[in-house]
Amino acid sequence: MSKLRVGIAGLGTVGRGVAKLFADPGSRLNEKLELVAVCARDARRDRGVNVGRYRWFEDPIALASDPSIDVVVELIGGAVGAAKSAVEAALGRGAHVITANKALIAEHGEALAALAESKGAKLLFEAAVGGGVPMVKALKESVAGSRASSVAGILNGTCNYILTEMEASGRSFEAVLAEAQQLGYAEADPTMDIGGFDAAHKLTILSAIAFGARPDYGHVRIEGIERVSLTDIRLAGKLGYRVKLIAKGALADGAVEMHVRPALLSHDHPLANVSGSLNALVVDAEPAGQLTFIGRGAGEGPTAASVASDLIDLAEGRGGSAFGRPLAQLASAPRATPAERGRYYLRLQVVDKPGVVAAISDRLAHEEISIESFLQMPVQGEAAVPIVLTTQTCARARIEAAVAAIQALGVASEAPFVMPVEHGGGARMGR
Amino acid sequence: MSKLRVGIAGLGTVGRGVAKLFADPGSRLNEKLELVAVCARDARRDRGVNVGRYRWFEDPIALASDPSIDVVVELIGGAVGAAKSAVEAALGRGAHVITANKALIAEHGEALAALAESKGAKLLFEAAVGGGVPMVKALKESVAGSRASSVAGILNGTCNYILTEMEASGRSFEAVLAEAQQLGYAEADPTMDIGGFDAAHKLTILSAIAFGARPDYGHVRIEGIERVSLTDIRLAGKLGYRVKLIAKGALADGAVEMHVRPALLSHDHPLANVSGSLNALVVDAEPAGQLTFIGRGAGEGPTAASVASDLIDLAEGRGGSAFGRPLAQLASAPRATPAERGRYYLRLQVVDKPGVVAAISDRLAHEEISIESFLQMPVQGEAAVPIVLTTQTCARARIEAAVAAIQALGVASEAPFVMPVEHGGGARMGR
Repeated sequence: MSKLRVGIAGLGTVGRGVAKLFADPGSRLNEKLELVAVCARDARRDRGVNVGRYRWFEDPIALASDPSIDVVVELIGGAVGAAKSAVEAALGRGAHVITANKALIAEHGEALAALAESKGAKLLFEAAVGGGVPMVKALKESVAGSRASSVAGILNGTCNYILTEMEASGRSFEAVLAEAQQLGYAEADPTMDIGGFDAAHKLTILSAIAFGARPDYGHVRIEGIERVSLTDIRLAGKLGYRVKLIAKGALADGAVEMHVRPALLSHDHPLANVSGSLNALVVDAEPAGQLTFIGRGAGEGPTAASVASDLIDLAEGRGGSAFGRPLAQLASAPRATPAERGRYYLRLQVVDKPGVVAAISDRLAHEEISIESFLQMPVQGEAAVPIVLTTQTCARARIEAAVAAIQALGVASEAPFVMPVEHGGGARMGR
Repeated sequence: MSKLRVGIAGLGTVGRGVAKLFADPGSRLNEKLELVAVCARDARRDRGVNVGRYRWFEDPIALASDPSIDVVVELIGGAVGAAKSAVEAALGRGAHVITANKALIAEHGEALAALAESKGAKLLFEAAVGGGVPMVKALKESVAGSRASSVAGILNGTCNYILTEMEASGRSFEAVLAEAQQLGYAEADPTMDIGGFDAAHKLTILSAIAFGARPDYGHVRIEGIERVSLTDIRLAGKLGYRVKLIAKGALADGAVEMHVRPALLSHDHPLANVSGSLNALVVDAEPAGQLTFIGRGAGEGPTAASVASDLIDLAEGRGGSAFGRPLAQLASAPRATPAERGRYYLRLQVVDKPGVVAAISDRLAHEEISIESFLQMPVQGEAAVPIVLTTQTCARARIEAAVAAIQALGVASEAPFVMPVEHGGGARMGR
């Protein structure tokens, strides 16, 4: 059998990693695949791997359109522009596509999967989510015999790194972000990461696969970590919690609900100890039970390894439908408008004068919200002091109403900050 | 396309679970597969699912030999006898086999895979290891683009349940084992579990796949949890460790080393918080990095879900070679005889009289073993008291020599108990 001929469009961090794997003669990649072409702007740049032996393209669409290439590996990135055009060109002529492009798959995955299906081509994207952690395959294939009811993950390594470093070093969000940018862990414009959009792209993909529904990026409620302060992390720690950016999708009564937001996790939560740049996914499925997957969420090696596993799947005749089943079988799940209930963390920045705490307590009591714990941060010589509290289980709507009432008091110097509090399942007993 | 016709041999816990999945009209199993036959001894027993509509076999070999059955699901168990004969009968006529039988695959997997290959049949066994956790697929497919250097897991839920309960409740090994037997979490004869043999079977399978080597059960060094006492768990806890039964395989210089044994894990170790009946696997691979998989390690639902995922893989044309690559490509890795080094925990039961600690310290110093921590358990009115210590990094051979010298002192009332101490990787930094 002749080998599948592979072209890599994009020789950034991940593309370089894939090229290095092909350069290893002992890699299983070389058994049934052959790297024949690469595409990048600058042919002379040193990439730590000799790419001079492959056909060189400057235009990714030209590479994607070349009939001598069986598999196009798209590692350019971005939901529009060259990446999208190259993927469309490849699929349009029936070539397989492997990509790490979460924005593209989250926003245009349905149309691209339809194009792939119509041409009998495969569209695989393990590397788009969770770096080296095989989240896509786990949901597509391993959970196939079960029904998933929720997926919850730490899907953005930059945010998790920042939150972990804030906790470990006691430095501010701004200081840690600046350091992360210097170290190359965060982009010069960090909006996609810290704003929660990258995690939302990944969640869109995972939810579609887990719940057998069409990807619906526009439906994700997105909140980033910009408002998480060192005070939140310290006081959450005192109360026994850790702050994490959680991406969660849930299926209830046939409707899918998705959100990305910072949350307080109790120490027994399976995601509480996922630190630094690690990514993780917790899947609840019946009858499989709760499954947790943890690993490196980004970087050259892990992401290239996921591209390689897709390539090997392709070469060995695996690698099914893009989202785990044919598009026609994917449901257009109604968008859930959940009447959310839970426990909440609330931080208020208030003027430090008598009666303020009593007034706040009164507004919470008026909404029938029971306070579980209450902490006031000692601050020397400041006009406003932070007060944080956690509630017992209540409706989110009640929290919103109480927050509005507290704001109307005129004692808060900034808008109150609310995060949900999540506890572990306590799956210790039983077999 | 006509559906694949499935026969289930063995309607115990797992077989019942698989039959229930087929009974669910919405299950993806029913899209491309059809349950047509079952086999068990007693047709009248209530199994919580109507199996009367399927062809009934009393003899599993008759079921396995029936030409109208395309896929035989072997859920009888045991490395010999009816399970082995049925699997051989099925593969011998070119029928696919899916099994949860770790003993059979660990001890006879190579011969069975050869038979499968020669007949063009598939032999799949996700359910044999880790219950609902897709460890086999992760190693066969997701890690395929990387090179695994080690696998380490908590692979026996019974042992993990016992150790967790001892720690949580302060009860003895014997008391918790008796309770586990009453609750059905442990067998009447618990040897396979608590002796480490079940974990060794599973480790054999995972190591073969991870390292591309022939399964070699006879090479696993096996130690169970029988000697782990409440004293060990308590004192380990005081020193910042948790006792777990760890199954570990490592590839070094082309040789495979495998062992199952109780160990002390620091709280930052990825397996330290895997409690109760959960199973988990940590894979170190390059360039994927460290991957951790956690979930329910046994029971009707999780194990049936893994059988179902294998069935769906089969129906969708996935499901490659039994051990991830053709048998001819599996190495006969030399058996490693590792010059083990590490940190160790040592428990001595000694007579409580002056000079004993000094004498023990002297024997350790003679082997150039540095003590990291030392604890003596206060015991009222006992002739012998437990002393535990942890060492700094040293050669295992030195520990063995020191232990022999301490025994020669005649002050120990029972044989010293040694466990390795393992620390987490500290993968917090970096991206």
